[in-house]
Order: sequence, then structure tokens, then C-alpha cells
Amino acid sequence: MSNNTYAIIGSGALGGFYGAKLQKAGLEVHFLLHNDYQHVLENGLIIKSKDGDFNLPQVNAYNNTNKMPKCDVILIGLKTTENHLLAELLPQLLKENTVVLLLQNGLGAEPKIAKIVGEDRVIGGVCNLASNKVSFGYIHHIDYGLIRIGRYARNYQLAEITNKMREITQDFESAGVRVNLTEDLLLERWKKLVWNIPYNSLSVILDARTDEMMGDANTKNLVIEIMREVLEGAKSCERQIPNSYIQEMLDHTDKLPPYLTSMKIDYERRRPLEIEGIIDNPLRMASEVGVKLPKIGMLYQQLKFLDARNRQNFSIQRKIK
Amino acid sequence: MSNNTYAIIGSGALGGFYGAKLQKAGLEVHFLLHNDYQHVLENGLIIKSKDGDFNLPQVNAYNNTNKMPKCDVILIGLKTTENHLLAELLPQLLKENTVVLLLQNGLGAEPKIAKIVGEDRVIGGVCNLASNKVSFGYIHHIDYGLIRIGRYARNYQLAEITNKMREITQDFESAGVRVNLTEDLLLERWKKLVWNIPYNSLSVILDARTDEMMGDANTKNLVIEIMREVLEGAKSCERQIPNSYIQEMLDHTDKLPPYLTSMKIDYERRRPLEIEGIIDNPLRMASEVGVKLPKIGMLYQQLKFLDARNRQNFSIQRKIK
Repeated sequence: MSNNTYAIIGSGALGGFYGAKLQKAGLEVHFLLHNDYQHVLENGLIIKSKDGDFNLPQVNAYNNTNKMPKCDVILIGLKTTENHLLAELLPQLLKENTVVLLLQNGLGAEPKIAKIVGEDRVIGGVCNLASNKVSFGYIHHIDYGLIRIGRYARNYQLAEITNKMREITQDFESAGVRVNLTEDLLLERWKKLVWNIPYNSLSVILDARTDEMMGDANTKNLVIEIMREVLEGAKSCERQIPNSYIQEMLDHTDKLPPYLTSMKIDYERRRPLEIEGIIDNPLRMASEVGVKLPKIGMLYQQLKFLDARNRQNFSIQRKIK
Repeated sequence: MSNNTYAIIGSGALGGFYGAKLQKAGLEVHFLLHNDYQHVLENGLIIKSKDGDFNLPQVNAYNNTNKMPKCDVILIGLKTTENHLLAELLPQLLKENTVVLLLQNGLGAEPKIAKIVGEDRVIGGVCNLASNKVSFGYIHHIDYGLIRIGRYARNYQLAEITNKMREITQDFESAGVRVNLTEDLLLERWKKLVWNIPYNSLSVILDARTDEMMGDANTKNLVIEIMREVLEGAKSCERQIPNSYIQEMLDHTDKLPPYLTSMKIDYERRRPLEIEGIIDNPLRMASEVGVKLPKIGMLYQQLKFLDARNRQNFSIQRKIK
């Protein structure tokens, strides 16, 4: 285990979970909170986990990054829809060798973070995690937890694994979280999209759980066709995902319990959807080299409509109340 | 006006309206009814119409085609989802020169009717009608009414206009309903699909009215892209619809009051959706000559899923009650 100190920016179902695991393992962790700041300051965090429940009665809680100490690793657990906040949140947390570990879905956030903190500081991570924030300071870790991390280099070119990445891996593994290191962050991001694009999009558009989509021949075929387009998208970025990966994802999904995707949960809570990172940026990267992904394009149009209306109605509703 | 007698098979918002207009004009009309048979037998029909309200206190009402007289014109006003009933309903209504006037949306029903009644008897009609059945025996005609009719000939080849078609035109026009005659039924069917495919499908998938779809840049673009595919479909059947027709349909839709499509109304009432006629048969005709319509294919998959679940839940609900 290293002497790294960690700042958790966005201490929700993901950031809160990993941060709590790190603190429990003995690392120094500082949590940025928003809605549940006061609660967590007074009561700490409760983690209910299939790997063992635990409480942290006291944590370093903040509601403002200006009050936080500079840290060695800044773990970003925000939704990509909140990334516009980072230009304001991050600079005061940086010291000479600080790295930013971006644990988010989708594609295309790293170049923007690189502009804020400098290109050599950015590490991207793809999490395989089923976790929910149940209430203030209370996180339910349902399953999984593996993180795949890779350094960001300009235009997502391959990037060597650094000692800092190895330290982070040791920190997480001493906290019971598996980490895989990769030189090809972009490949990992596209691979995650093979699942995220079809299931997240269709779960919102069709108001459906994964088991419903898999149980209907038409939607199952549509999922497969969309996955093929994601493979085309990856190929347009010179990343090869074997066709067999599609079957792997289908088999994996068949084994899930009836599952609401994260985008569907956001939709039901009337939060902005992660359309930019999960749909729009992949579309754009493919389109820049002349590759069209028509089904994903149609998902984009349908989701943009639903997202706009969902939040518009919410504003109206709130005004009426 | 002719001496033609009319049988109305499916006396709902469409069949009931046109049948009532014909009877009011002095023609002999026989109505086949289902749910509201007893009510209409006792009370007749009430038509509230932007062209003038009227009542028919007495109509020839039946709940079984075996009790109906043979007629000169059989107007089919059923939804295409009920066409499987026609093999049983039609034969007893036919005399030597009887024709069947199929006033339905979509494509591909005529060949099936032709198998039941013979190829030279089938006339297809495309209605531009906004009408609702409000309650038993009570129809609200909101707007429009024009019918375009063309004779069906094998494989939808061009077919000359017959005297019978001219008689029918006179009958309808004496009843205040405009009729256009055409030798190209297939062209009319494809033209109607330019509107029906995008708006009907998306209204169900996105739970949206026409004004909402037109008011959002993403869905408006999607509508246009789908319309372009319909033009491709028509072209695959050697029918040319000019590009300007798309703008015409958009302008027309912009002028509509906030509008629920017929498929959306069916969906809300948990009735089967007209997917076969409106989506599947057009897809199939294009695909038979090697033309793919990917966006319409995706609408098909989404609608099939929603339709199946919609009616499955209904059955479950009914069992629980």
C-alpha cells in the first residue's frame, strides 16, 4: 500500500463506495459531497456490500474543494453530465504529481479533463460495478467492482503504464478491489460501450429492464445489431473487438437479475442522461472518419427528445408545487 | 346517386361515419357492429361533425354477417389487425357484381382479401379522416374526409378505373364526401405511409403527440429521415414520390392541433397495433427487391416489443381483477 492521499469528487454510489473501501484499508481519503454533506459529516458512511458490510463513523467530508487538502490521486466519481463543474473543482486540489482518475462511463471526457489539469495527469477508468446510493451516506454495493485503468494520451493513443498506476492498483487491491491495467484506454472504453449503448438507451426508450429486452426476440435482435454498430465504431478508431465479445455480453446480461440500467435510473429520477458521453461522442468519433452508425444515431435522436421532455416536465411540475 | 346497397363491416370511427353519411344521403346501408350492436339497434347513430351534426334514429344493425343481405358494395372499416376475421365474414355477403372497398391504412391487405373474394372485386381506399368513436353509437368527425380509391390488380399493378368505382364516387359525393379516383393504388398507399410510418411509430415509442415531435429538432429530423426511407421503399416498388412531398407532410402536420395518432390511441386502449400493415409489409416489399430500410426496421423491433408487452400486461391485469 502506498502513501497516496485520495480526493473523491462525487461521493455517490461509485465514488463513495471506492472511497470508503480505500479508507477502510487505511488510506487517507477526503470526500467531496453535495446533498448529503451534513449527514455524512455527522454520521459517516454505511456500506452494505456483498463482500461484507462496514461502517465508517467518521470520514473527511467537504462541501467545497477549496477546503480540501491537495491530494495525490483525485478520483472523479461524478456523472459525466456534471463534468462542466470540474474546471472549477479541480485546480486547487493539484500538487506536482497529482493524477486524476476518471471513473466514468462513455467516451470523450478525458481530453476535456486534460485541458484543465494537463495531459500527463489523466488516467481513465472503466468500472464494472453494481452499486446504488440508497439514502444519505448509505451505499448498497450489489455486485462486481473490477476497474480497468489506462493512462490518457493525446487522441487516445496507446500509453505506457506508469508507476503511479501501479501504486493505485496496489492501493485498490489492498482495499479488496480488483484492478486491471491497460495501455489501451480507448479499447476499454469502446468495450464498455458494447453493453452501455444498447441497454442504457433501450431501457429508457422502451421503459424496459434488461430481462425484458433479452426475453423478446425483436429487442434481443436489436440489441445485437446495435452491438455490431459499436464494434464498427471501435473499428473506425482502429480498435478491434472480436465478434465473440457480443455473445459474451449477451450471456452476461442473461445472468443478471432483472436490472434497471444507470441511465434508466437517472431518467426516473429526472436527472440529465449521459447521452453525450455514451452516445454522442462515440457517434462523433466514428463520423469524423466517415463511419456512420445509423441505429445508434436513431437512439441519440430518441433519447435527446425524451431527456429534454423529462426535465422540462419536471421543471413545470416543480413550479406548480 | 346509384342504387348500390352498402354493407359496412366494422362500424367504428371510420366505417360508422362513412356509412352514416351514405344512409343520410338516401342510400341503403347495413351496419355490422360488435360492442355497440344492441345500443345502435335501439338508438341508431349520432354523428357530431364539423360539416354539420346529424342523428340517424334508426339504422340496419347486425351482429352477424349471416343475417345481413347481400350488398353491392362491402365497405371494410375494420382495423387491419382484425382482417383475419374476413374469411368468415365476407363470403355470405357477395352477389355477382359485389365489390369490396377496403378503407384501411398500410399495405398488403388487398392480396389477402383478393384470395377470399376474388381478385376483380377488390378496391383499396386511403382515407384522410380525423374521426373518433366517442361512445356507443356516437361518432365525432373532427376534420377531413377525402378518400382516394384505386382498384387492386395482382401485385398492385396499375388498374383501370371501372364504372363501379365511378358509381361509388357519386354515392360518396352525394353524401358530401370527396373521392379521388386513381389507377395507382400502390402509390397512394405508399404516400399515406410517408405520414403514417414516422408519426404512428414514434407516437407510441416516445409517448408523444405530433406537436411534441415537431417541436424538437432531434425528433423532427428523425421524422424526416424516416420519411426519406419511405420514399426509398416506394421507389423499390417503382413508385416515385417527389421529395417535396416530405415538406408538404411536415407543413400539414405543423398545422394540426396537438394530435394523438391512431396507433397511439390503439396502444393506450391496449389494442393490437397495426404493425403488420403499416411497418412490416412495407419493409417486406422493399426487402424482396433487396432494399433495406434500417430506421423503419428499428421502429418495427421497438414497436413489436411494446405491443407484445402492452397486451401481455393487460391480460395479467385482467386476470388479477
